[in-house]
Amino acid sequence: MAHIDLGNPLPGLPALLRFRPETARPLSDLAEVLLRGPGPLARGERELIASYVSVLNGCGFCAGTHGACAAVQLDEGMPLVERVHADPAAAPVPARLRALLRIAAAVQRGGGQVGAADVAAAREAGADDVEIHDTVLIAAAFCMYNRYVDGLGTPAPADPRAYLPMAERLVREGYAVPDAVPPGARA
Amino acid sequence: MAHIDLGNPLPGLPALLRFRPETARPLSDLAEVLLRGPGPLARGERELIASYVSVLNGCGFCAGTHGACAAVQLDEGMPLVERVHADPAAAPVPARLRALLRIAAAVQRGGGQVGAADVAAAREAGADDVEIHDTVLIAAAFCMYNRYVDGLGTPAPADPRAYLPMAERLVREGYAVPDAVPPGARA
Repeated sequence: MAHIDLGNPLPGLPALLRFRPETARPLSDLAEVLLRGPGPLARGERELIASYVSVLNGCGFCAGTHGACAAVQLDEGMPLVERVHADPAAAPVPARLRALLRIAAAVQRGGGQVGAADVAAAREAGADDVEIHDTVLIAAAFCMYNRYVDGLGTPAPADPRAYLPMAERLVREGYAVPDAVPPGARA
Repeated sequence: MAHIDLGNPLPGLPALLRFRPETARPLSDLAEVLLRGPGPLARGERELIASYVSVLNGCGFCAGTHGACAAVQLDEGMPLVERVHADPAAAPVPARLRALLRIAAAVQRGGGQVGAADVAAAREAGADDVEIHDTVLIAAAFCMYNRYVDGLGTPAPADPRAYLPMAERLVREGYAVPDAVPPGARA
């Protein structure tokens, strides 16, 4: 049970977005720009970074949702996502993405944990400054979303299959709040 | 020196906002809603929660900026901010705010660290569900901003007095990106 009365039966982040529409809009806009907006990282790569950080933070809801979003958008699907979640250093991903996942893991531990050597290794593997920037910001943002979802004790489906329909809808329609919900309105 | 070439001489978060205007807008909108938008917590209280979490994360830029924003908006000014940063349990703040700062510290450690007892204590001290929600989200959001600022190694002024003019401008004008910067434009 959630720590506060959310007034709706939704799980995880959707429950919080409905509870507080004022903050829902910038949180949704941020997810849309980070995970789907113009940028050099493929959408599947961004979702993989997001879900991997969520695993490191122990956030089942975000790991389930974004792991499924990654699986839907990567050719190698869920088997690759599961290997990255378990051990990105050993997973069959390009060296560039492996180096970016290493930066994401450092960000998860703390901003000061990203070393010049991590950044140099990513650059060596072919990552440019915007890819490094976007990786750091996606990892940092999921340190927020994960804490928001778990800090208020929202419920999360235990069955991994429950996340697939949600992921398919997000991949199709995106994260932005529909305009039908006026900004500032309390649900 | 920052880990990537930001192409501008600004410190901390402003350097990052200028580097990537696409993400600057939702990040700025979120700060505006969280720290200044409609809500039950006073603006000075919200800045105090933000700066305390930034201290816990070791983020000098955000602690300096938001500590100064709190000082400007709280009657007791910087002496109170410094006492809260050093030891909120012993600082002369109302029991309600002390309980909320305790929740913020739990969120900083991890979403799963917020216990039912922390929430019950806040409610006992007079906090309502929206105050608890907003505290969790502000604390979570600064776990993002702090990691973003330090994960990319942005420079931060060492002199605490450097943050005061910046804080006075933020308190006067807010966090939202001026409309003069079109969304999607790269500076």
